[in-house]
Amino acid sequence: MSASPAPACRFQSFTDPCDPAQVAPRLAALRAALAGLGLDGFVVPRADEHQGEYVPAHMARLAWLTGFTGSAGNAVVLADKAALIVDGRYTIQSVAQTDTALVTPTRMEETPLGAWVEANLPAGGRLGYDPWLHTVDGLAKLEKAVEAAGGELVPTVLNPIDALWSDRPAPPVAPVTVHPRALAGEDAAAKLARIREALAREKVDALVLSDPHALAWTFNIRGGDVEHTPLPLGYAILPREGRPTVFLAPKKLGNEAGDAIGAVADIAAPEALAGRLKALGAEGATVLLDAATASAALASLIREAGGTPRAGTDPTALMKARKNETELAGARAAHLRDGAAMVRFLAWLSRTALAGGLTEIDAVAALEAERLRTGLLRDVSFTTIAGAGPNAALPHYRVTEASNRPIAPGIFLVDSGGQYEDGTTDITRTVAIGTPDAEMRDRFTRVLKGHVAISRAVFPKGTSGAQLDVLARLPLWQAGLDFDHGTGHGVGSYLSVHEGPQRLSKLGHTALEPGMILSNEPGYYKEGAYGIRTENLVVVEPRRVEGAEREMYGFETISWCPYDRALIDPALLDEGEIAWIDAYHAQVLAKLAPIVDGEAKAWLQESCRPL
Amino acid sequence: MSASPAPACRFQSFTDPCDPAQVAPRLAALRAALAGLGLDGFVVPRADEHQGEYVPAHMARLAWLTGFTGSAGNAVVLADKAALIVDGRYTIQSVAQTDTALVTPTRMEETPLGAWVEANLPAGGRLGYDPWLHTVDGLAKLEKAVEAAGGELVPTVLNPIDALWSDRPAPPVAPVTVHPRALAGEDAAAKLARIREALAREKVDALVLSDPHALAWTFNIRGGDVEHTPLPLGYAILPREGRPTVFLAPKKLGNEAGDAIGAVADIAAPEALAGRLKALGAEGATVLLDAATASAALASLIREAGGTPRAGTDPTALMKARKNETELAGARAAHLRDGAAMVRFLAWLSRTALAGGLTEIDAVAALEAERLRTGLLRDVSFTTIAGAGPNAALPHYRVTEASNRPIAPGIFLVDSGGQYEDGTTDITRTVAIGTPDAEMRDRFTRVLKGHVAISRAVFPKGTSGAQLDVLARLPLWQAGLDFDHGTGHGVGSYLSVHEGPQRLSKLGHTALEPGMILSNEPGYYKEGAYGIRTENLVVVEPRRVEGAEREMYGFETISWCPYDRALIDPALLDEGEIAWIDAYHAQVLAKLAPIVDGEAKAWLQESCRPL
Repeated sequence: MSASPAPACRFQSFTDPCDPAQVAPRLAALRAALAGLGLDGFVVPRADEHQGEYVPAHMARLAWLTGFTGSAGNAVVLADKAALIVDGRYTIQSVAQTDTALVTPTRMEETPLGAWVEANLPAGGRLGYDPWLHTVDGLAKLEKAVEAAGGELVPTVLNPIDALWSDRPAPPVAPVTVHPRALAGEDAAAKLARIREALAREKVDALVLSDPHALAWTFNIRGGDVEHTPLPLGYAILPREGRPTVFLAPKKLGNEAGDAIGAVADIAAPEALAGRLKALGAEGATVLLDAATASAALASLIREAGGTPRAGTDPTALMKARKNETELAGARAAHLRDGAAMVRFLAWLSRTALAGGLTEIDAVAALEAERLRTGLLRDVSFTTIAGAGPNAALPHYRVTEASNRPIAPGIFLVDSGGQYEDGTTDITRTVAIGTPDAEMRDRFTRVLKGHVAISRAVFPKGTSGAQLDVLARLPLWQAGLDFDHGTGHGVGSYLSVHEGPQRLSKLGHTALEPGMILSNEPGYYKEGAYGIRTENLVVVEPRRVEGAEREMYGFETISWCPYDRALIDPALLDEGEIAWIDAYHAQVLAKLAPIVDGEAKAWLQESCRPL
Repeated sequence: MSASPAPACRFQSFTDPCDPAQVAPRLAALRAALAGLGLDGFVVPRADEHQGEYVPAHMARLAWLTGFTGSAGNAVVLADKAALIVDGRYTIQSVAQTDTALVTPTRMEETPLGAWVEANLPAGGRLGYDPWLHTVDGLAKLEKAVEAAGGELVPTVLNPIDALWSDRPAPPVAPVTVHPRALAGEDAAAKLARIREALAREKVDALVLSDPHALAWTFNIRGGDVEHTPLPLGYAILPREGRPTVFLAPKKLGNEAGDAIGAVADIAAPEALAGRLKALGAEGATVLLDAATASAALASLIREAGGTPRAGTDPTALMKARKNETELAGARAAHLRDGAAMVRFLAWLSRTALAGGLTEIDAVAALEAERLRTGLLRDVSFTTIAGAGPNAALPHYRVTEASNRPIAPGIFLVDSGGQYEDGTTDITRTVAIGTPDAEMRDRFTRVLKGHVAISRAVFPKGTSGAQLDVLARLPLWQAGLDFDHGTGHGVGSYLSVHEGPQRLSKLGHTALEPGMILSNEPGYYKEGAYGIRTENLVVVEPRRVEGAEREMYGFETISWCPYDRALIDPALLDEGEIAWIDAYHAQVLAKLAPIVDGEAKAWLQESCRPL
């Protein structure tokens, strides 16, 4: 009954490729290179030139240098010290992955990048940076800090790491595919017309699409250049009048994609981007850059040629966030299929787990296998978070062979999703293995109350996610508890599982609008013991309220999978909450019973009984 | 039974001094003056040089020019057109007060100042402005708009209106008084030491106090230069090291105030301010300016002399907001006294109103008289809002002889407060005159549920007012209703009834901290029919929660006055809400019964029965 060897997954691995022993020689080599360039230090962000959540392997310079593989962070290397500045999610991971004798892991919440530079850069120190890896705003903050330290910020022409990185992977050239109108719901030409209207309103001469999500959405294309998100890495320039130019490596473009893009835009190689920006600048153009993703290098190219770069909001972000009816129909279909996979997985888990012998990796593999059985899975939408016991207390946990724990009596949390061509899913269920204790049931039920409060919310047009976030926290606050992440994020349509600008978080100031998809995922984490999170995706929809004086909205839930009744304490629920949960379970049963069978169907029927 | 002539009030008047007929000649005179200065236009903000909510009479240039007396707005005068740009509160008032044939009232929410200028300033147009009346940020926005219009922004040395204003009042010179340590709870010297620490942390050489509230708080002084807030208009410069300088007109300073200030600071005339700022600039000093209240003129004086003005957060704002134990004890005492006055007033109203013959002005006078009876009233804390029927639907209504309505069966709303030396009060009660209808009871009860939800809130350290605001709205949202103002504002300690940075509003991103006083005042407004608002003041306090994992806070309610039970529909309340209201009423009775008598006491006892 020993655990079997780690099963293979198509889309996920369980290795930790980092080796802290590499840090010393690489750091030394970088310092030597900096000295040769006359620099006293260098900033190494985790970001690539698109500020993406996933970066292609050849852009993983922070991981190459420090060993740290988290999704956000910055290293600063000075002559005699180096810091790895990461947010609270990554405190433990940064310590484990880097050589702490040489690189000091530093909590961003206490010492952000600017503060560390201000405190540590010697007066007169020349701090190098790669202008392709910093946004205009980010650079402005860094500049302030360097100024306060009495130093100088120096752009590098080539990133000095690239010359030292002997086995650096090649840039990805995954084929670009067409995202057909039957799934996108709107032609690229129609989208371009809407964008041109926005540019006219903004009084700019052109827009640079620096966010590959925007590129994918605008031209109805998808790619495969990074993990788990079907992105083609590239750029586009959209003039207010005239044909756009799409910048994509020619190797990525087959006939079909080339023809589709070519119907509405010119196509150029990425190497041509700088020249085109300079040409725009030379015409004196005002060019809108996406403040969130455009690098300072783009702004410099335009400015130095005589143009006016204006960092602002990419108008496609909000257009992309409001899904049309076709995209919503796709999302509903994807979620039914995905819910059935979840039910088959949870039914298997409930039959198997208590007997022992299962590990987190087994669960990840089994769930991916169930999604593959749909025949339509293109990828998982992110690395599955499967946490047993104390691992579940890490909200962004990723299991590796080193961290892998047996699924033992207690609590098991699975946060996962799939990429289907008709929709991106993201769902979390927390289940009891064996009989949960009273505290676990109390915490689970409070989290569920918050989740239900979001599901049932009715709110006027103009309300932001920042206003609603608190509804998910109140039942925890009443017991002196809370969770340290937002309640929900936007989700794309066969694009990123994390999509702005909408979010349910105290930072989510974008008004919620019909068609936006959001996650609803409050949690509770007891360090070293267990973690709880419950997540569905919801769609903002107009809501008729009898006698209403305002235009009202609410949420349509589109994820279908039962909550674990063993963890629910009905004594903590009011009538309205019980009614909502029973109605949800009745819908889950009605929707999924026809598409699951055998033991899974029996488990589903048992799980969906009224409370 | 006819209404008696308007009774006299000590602190409030009911006249509307504006005369739209004055607009034409004044506008013509200004245009002639602008032509003489080579200007094509001029911006006339409502603001004085301190960006105050109340401005002294000689600074009321916007009212002089346009007739508009609201508390916020801007006029822009061009050669052939003029706009009066005000927010939604003042749409109706701006139309009534100005000459709409010559000045176009414009809604700020649709066309803010910048947008109007951008759309209307002719290319090449020179737009004048008085640099003492615009903040650095405000000016930057205006500059952007003028640039987009292809015009030029031109500072004036003297405001051209001042030369045209023949009967301009003199600047106020109300005596400055000492706010004793027994009320302030902390010496000026101790406050200055804390400020110096903050300046060291901020790495600035000096701070300019441009907000008279900051001046009053820091030096423990009060004044009488504007209505309803005991402010001494003036400035101070606080160097990080060395003695501060306070700039106050010598006429305002008697021996006591002069000695008190002189113990910790030098005193200079306001005319000396510019010279001192230039001297700081010449030393190369970095000077912190309060972004909210410092005029662009201050920044220019420093910059042009070679210094670095840094617009930021005045550190005294947060210090002032966190009341100490002495200030809180004072606030509690003031609120008991003020609650008794409210009870005597409401008891009188309940005996008298149904018989008819009372007007809104009668109510304002009666309530002021009850506050005067305390013997300790220094002023009302703002112009009383007393609205009968449809007037109550205007959240910022001020009764004039022209608008005065009889108090007739239906709903009557009174929002008022007092300035006592130990505390500033602000309370709103909405009462039924006769028997209210079912809709009124429904709306009142929903507003009360929101008010109770705020009162009962328990939240972790770090929570902002923006996060809590929604709690006051949920019961209205459930019926498709809402209200268009924040749920609460900060309140000063014998200072302004509107004090930042804390607020209960979606814009209130300051974390709530123990000792902060806030209003809790949700409402509901039915245009043309009636309005409802219920308001208490609350103090943020630490809260022990059994088993809590976080540091938790809650609100201590300090306003004492019954809610009108005739307007409460208990069927809409849950057990917890009823228990809270009953407990509150029991406390109101216990606290106020000993200090009211006769018919007021009988009314109080009746009003405080359990629901």
